[in-house]
Amino acid sequence: MNTAHSPKLDAIDTPAALIDVERMQRNIARMQTRMDELGVRFRPHVKTTKCVDVVRAQIAAGAQGITVSTLKEAEAFFAAGIGDILYAVGITPSKLPRALALRQRGCDLKLILDNAAAANAVVEFGKVHGHAFEVWLEVDTDGHRSGLAPGHDALIEVGRTLQDGGVEVGGVMTHAGSSYELHDVEALAALAEQERAGCVLAAERLRAAGVVCKTVSVGSTPTALHARELPGVDEVRAGVYVFFDLVMRNVGVCGTNDIALSVLASVIGHQPDKGWVIVDAGWMALSRDRGTAKQSHDFGYGLVCALDGTPIAGAAFVGANQEHGIVAIEPHDADALATRFPLGMKLRILPNHACATGAQFPEYYAVMPEGHVAVWSRFHGW
Amino acid sequence: MNTAHSPKLDAIDTPAALIDVERMQRNIARMQTRMDELGVRFRPHVKTTKCVDVVRAQIAAGAQGITVSTLKEAEAFFAAGIGDILYAVGITPSKLPRALALRQRGCDLKLILDNAAAANAVVEFGKVHGHAFEVWLEVDTDGHRSGLAPGHDALIEVGRTLQDGGVEVGGVMTHAGSSYELHDVEALAALAEQERAGCVLAAERLRAAGVVCKTVSVGSTPTALHARELPGVDEVRAGVYVFFDLVMRNVGVCGTNDIALSVLASVIGHQPDKGWVIVDAGWMALSRDRGTAKQSHDFGYGLVCALDGTPIAGAAFVGANQEHGIVAIEPHDADALATRFPLGMKLRILPNHACATGAQFPEYYAVMPEGHVAVWSRFHGW
Repeated sequence: MNTAHSPKLDAIDTPAALIDVERMQRNIARMQTRMDELGVRFRPHVKTTKCVDVVRAQIAAGAQGITVSTLKEAEAFFAAGIGDILYAVGITPSKLPRALALRQRGCDLKLILDNAAAANAVVEFGKVHGHAFEVWLEVDTDGHRSGLAPGHDALIEVGRTLQDGGVEVGGVMTHAGSSYELHDVEALAALAEQERAGCVLAAERLRAAGVVCKTVSVGSTPTALHARELPGVDEVRAGVYVFFDLVMRNVGVCGTNDIALSVLASVIGHQPDKGWVIVDAGWMALSRDRGTAKQSHDFGYGLVCALDGTPIAGAAFVGANQEHGIVAIEPHDADALATRFPLGMKLRILPNHACATGAQFPEYYAVMPEGHVAVWSRFHGW
Repeated sequence: MNTAHSPKLDAIDTPAALIDVERMQRNIARMQTRMDELGVRFRPHVKTTKCVDVVRAQIAAGAQGITVSTLKEAEAFFAAGIGDILYAVGITPSKLPRALALRQRGCDLKLILDNAAAANAVVEFGKVHGHAFEVWLEVDTDGHRSGLAPGHDALIEVGRTLQDGGVEVGGVMTHAGSSYELHDVEALAALAEQERAGCVLAAERLRAAGVVCKTVSVGSTPTALHARELPGVDEVRAGVYVFFDLVMRNVGVCGTNDIALSVLASVIGHQPDKGWVIVDAGWMALSRDRGTAKQSHDFGYGLVCALDGTPIAGAAFVGANQEHGIVAIEPHDADALATRFPLGMKLRILPNHACATGAQFPEYYAVMPEGHVAVWSRFHGW
């Protein structure tokens, strides 16, 4: 990063979300290269950025299709020309009209579900509207959230309900989200294998029962980067890798100098006796995400860096109100505090969780390798 | 609340932020009545809602002027016809051009600061642009964040720097934000008195030193509602009271049936063996705020209620991913779970922190007492 002397970066109003585009491109290349080595397609989860500019860079690098977490993302990315979309949150009946509208406009939107009631609802709605939806079955491979157990009869029953009802069972998908709780290479590789094996088993059981199931889709950023081989898997999904963050640093899948998202903040005051520097980035900018609190290194509300991206030793982001951040300096010298961190000084804060921090902003400032800054908008809401 | 049978409420896409307008109006009336009894003006902090419709209701009830946390709020509310605005985050030099532009358009925008460097910057900028700003001095009465100590020489020096430099010192202001950490009526009344006494002392010392200081402004929702008398105080500020939330419930300033903001969510699946109901409101909807975690009652990610607003006994919002919420039911009956909480069932989640939860949404659905629903937009970003 060589942007410290960019007058354009200096001129940005604070707080602001900055993307270090060089780091982002490096993260994108790293993931795509690994997917190519493993012989699988890559379908990035765009919930991290909700930004067409970022997703175009992912597709340019080789991604095939996208994963979304909301129908608003599906609508916005389809409008931007991306047709192959997996909506990876279990469908409810009330959302079927919006999904149908997208498919009728030509979007290759795939739904997911993990229960008989949802399968019946999609079948019925499809019949009423004369439309054949494509559904992927959500499989639970680590017990952290949703999904059908790969070995359970319900998986087959739900698959048959769909197929017999005229719905294409396009695949099985799983997400080993418990990988965020790990921090050891062997454990991550083992979870990646567990994720793979469970999802492949689900596909094999469906196929043996006569349910067409063409795609096996797995992934999370940590398991994607630690999988050693992926036989039987067709595609991998991951989201946060594009920016990385301090949670991922603690998991062990990136270094702090891979983190491509930061919050630009200005010093607005001091409490010299306490060694506090007050900045204009509070939780409204950084989010309330304290994901590193229970990890090996608690970064408070973020890692405090100089404008050039270098972490500042002894500076800890210890507190946040809505528009105020409290940065504690240790050891502190009350008399020197305002000289070392003068009013108006710009700092860059690396976030705990890039998905949560990015969501606080209507746009990113994309800092190019040569220092030019572009404004990239992002979506908000549902 | 009698909105359970409103077809319009039923038709809202989830997740969505709902305002119970009857509760909101009751909260507004309660605060304004108390301020009238105490003989002070009331200047609501609009950072909680960032919504013109809500603020118009506060002004209609008697509020005089508003408090904002960002210049974007100042710009938006000034455009909506509100001219008397206190920007209650310490000013930095880079924000002065935007503040000047507002004042030159006729906005009675008041800045705050708590240090000599900022005072000098405002004086210099005012001279260069031939403009006399109005500044209020931020006073620290509880050590929780920013502000000048009421008894310290720096207060007088900063006040004189401003006044001698042609800047109007319009007042002193303080915010006893540490009130959020209390939960006892006597402690809250004592902190309200500490907040009042400190701020009045600051004004008296400034006046004795020849600095004109016409307004004494104090406040936080808990201290505003627990102050027993406010001699020397001209106005009170508070924000979250308009919606209240579970943090305020634990502080003891409201009941759960006063909370006017909720998140509407739909059931999207179940994990019967674990007693989990999966809903489509995760941390993107509820925010990552876990403010009740360290209070007397930890509400997880929110209090789970039926569509009519009644809390559901035994339901705990124990986990949240980006677009998934995990509601654990105790005691649980695996076979009955999907019958009791069927796919598509709507729930209302009361938030830990209304300011943080509201910020996740581009608009509120305002549910009127008779069941009619209006869409009220809110601002996002800076």
